Amino acid sequence: MQIRTATRADVPAVLGLLADDDISRQRGWGTVPEEVDAAIWAAFEAIDSDDRNELVVAAEDGEVIGTLQLTFIPGLSRGGGERLLIEAVRIRSDQRGRGLGGELIRWAVERARERGCRMVQLTTDKRRTDAQRFYATLGFVASHEGMKLAL
Amino acid sequence: MQIRTATRADVPAVLGLLADDDISRQRGWGTVPEEVDAAIWAAFEAIDSDDRNELVVAAEDGEVIGTLQLTFIPGLSRGGGERLLIEAVRIRSDQRGRGLGGELIRWAVERARERGCRMVQLTTDKRRTDAQRFYATLGFVASHEGMKLAL
Repeated sequence: MQIRTATRADVPAVLGLLADDDISRQRGWGTVPEEVDAAIWAAFEAIDSDDRNELVVAAEDGEVIGTLQLTFIPGLSRGGGERLLIEAVRIRSDQRGRGLGGELIRWAVERARERGCRMVQLTTDKRRTDAQRFYATLGFVASHEGMKLAL
Repeated sequence: MQIRTATRADVPAVLGLLADDDISRQRGWGTVPEEVDAAIWAAFEAIDSDDRNELVVAAEDGEVIGTLQLTFIPGLSRGGGERLLIEAVRIRSDQRGRGLGGELIRWAVERARERGCRMVQLTTDKRRTDAQRFYATLGFVASHEGMKLAL
């Protein structure tokens, strides 16, 4: 499995991974539009041109089978170290159970270490109990409530 | 109460607010150094020069009595809308209970709306049960586990 920064060509596959998820479907984002629209391209360009944001894909045999997004956040807490926020983690449904998620998250944590981050954080829907067990095995502690306000 | 972007002159006061907190003390970040060190200044400059990060202070009679940090995160989820992450929310201990926190968070949510964000999110330590009730009254839903890995 190759882990690398996403290119424009990966965007449709990433959208497919984001939509192929029971909870995303419940939120009303379970279908992939036939054409990638302007708002999505603008979001991709915003990420791609920002040194503190990175859209990442895991690929195998030329196919995208996993994705996540990294955001490195500067802050005055904890001695001025950055924190890494991980969002939008997905492994293609037919590739789950092979340990690819662990490989991808460990890669992200290693990136954070190399950059000198003080912390890696993420939130996961409380219904994703498998995900919580998985992150706990990687050393993450469920110390916080993740609170969301949809606009 | 005036809510505005922090300047360099506000940094010592913000550090004071971040440190004046029982949970920060337990984490070992409960004292304010006599001089602001280079890592903190670098973090301030990183935030100040980044269009997607904003260190905010609430001031009254020329004194900083509250702070929070905003990070606007582009993403391909939810139709390509940004999300706003709120971090490091503090109200000076002698000013709590006056509703300033609500004013500050509502201001941040309004900023997110104006910018077209799809979501506002934050995490709060599970021990901060008052904070969780407070955010719930503002419409936030504790739908996620907030998982952290200290490095």
